[in-house]
Amino acid sequence: MKLTYSAASPFARKVRMAAIELGLIDKIEFVPTAVAPGQPNDEYSQINPLKKLPALITDDGDVIIDSYVIVEYLDELAGGGKLIPASGATRWKVKSDHSLLQGMLDSMLLCRYERMVRPQGLQWQAWSDDHWNRAWNGMARFERQTDVLSRPLDIVQLALVCVLGYADFRFPDCGWRKAYPKLDAFHDRMLSRPSVKISVPPPA
Amino acid sequence: MKLTYSAASPFARKVRMAAIELGLIDKIEFVPTAVAPGQPNDEYSQINPLKKLPALITDDGDVIIDSYVIVEYLDELAGGGKLIPASGATRWKVKSDHSLLQGMLDSMLLCRYERMVRPQGLQWQAWSDDHWNRAWNGMARFERQTDVLSRPLDIVQLALVCVLGYADFRFPDCGWRKAYPKLDAFHDRMLSRPSVKISVPPPA
Repeated sequence: MKLTYSAASPFARKVRMAAIELGLIDKIEFVPTAVAPGQPNDEYSQINPLKKLPALITDDGDVIIDSYVIVEYLDELAGGGKLIPASGATRWKVKSDHSLLQGMLDSMLLCRYERMVRPQGLQWQAWSDDHWNRAWNGMARFERQTDVLSRPLDIVQLALVCVLGYADFRFPDCGWRKAYPKLDAFHDRMLSRPSVKISVPPPA
Repeated sequence: MKLTYSAASPFARKVRMAAIELGLIDKIEFVPTAVAPGQPNDEYSQINPLKKLPALITDDGDVIIDSYVIVEYLDELAGGGKLIPASGATRWKVKSDHSLLQGMLDSMLLCRYERMVRPQGLQWQAWSDDHWNRAWNGMARFERQTDVLSRPLDIVQLALVCVLGYADFRFPDCGWRKAYPKLDAFHDRMLSRPSVKISVPPPA
């Protein structure tokens, strides 16, 4: 399998961590891929019209997009029910919490594009503030969910690591560690996992 | 169950159509909910920090977010495997195609916010063009997939209806019918379904 990848993408990081945790990392070839909003990229658009990372290209040549669907696919390859519960009431909580984290990352990327990619003078502060608040309020929700922070590894914990790591990477002064001490302790614990440690984004 | 809803939301439309097709519509109370980017909404933020529509509130009081996860949940309530294949190789194609359509809708909403919600003078044309092209190139991909357009109803077809209906609703001059005649014929056929017809967005 091949995975389009950038070390700066929190979505690609989630898939990489999942592949390591599922014992599938040796089956995946990482294909370095650059994407930038506001710029055409006709070559990658052929693979994924959304021009987002990551995309998985299976050994049959099928393209699977969306980091969640890719993790679900890898989870099934590994036997199923490893990172996403295959049945039971907790499944919907896990899926919904993951969607929340996915949306928080989307909002954080929109904040970054607004503040650091969009040409100077075209910023709309209310848009940045709105999207930052979505991510920030989402963090507050996980700060209160001590069961999520302490249970066996699952996709919610991996996605939460991606959110916090992306905050460190792109918003180093946002102060999440001080505001959310339980998330800070969770993040520290997670860093003892090789999958988490090896995939920390490079210095910006 | 309760569903936060707006007739203008293509994501809420997908859930409404799915609920009708699955025979569950009478079990859902629709809660009219207004969301607007760049504006706080503290009340709805308590339910969904992302402030996106729709959210499902189950009879147990659990909140499920993301239209995909809600449809998956309703599908299981209806017996499973109705709109999303429960197993088999086609399942990953369906999930990936749905993710593509979901991303196309995200891009179309970003276009709308850029052109019609963001204050005048702050528009960045390259951003609009980029996101519009993602949706447009995605439509081109489905125009070529005649199997998707003619098979029994599934979540991909419902999401494609949401994309095309949203194009009519917010970008009535974009010319998708002329550019994509097979999608036009598909959309016409789908309008014969009561779930599709009843949920067409109101005149803008």
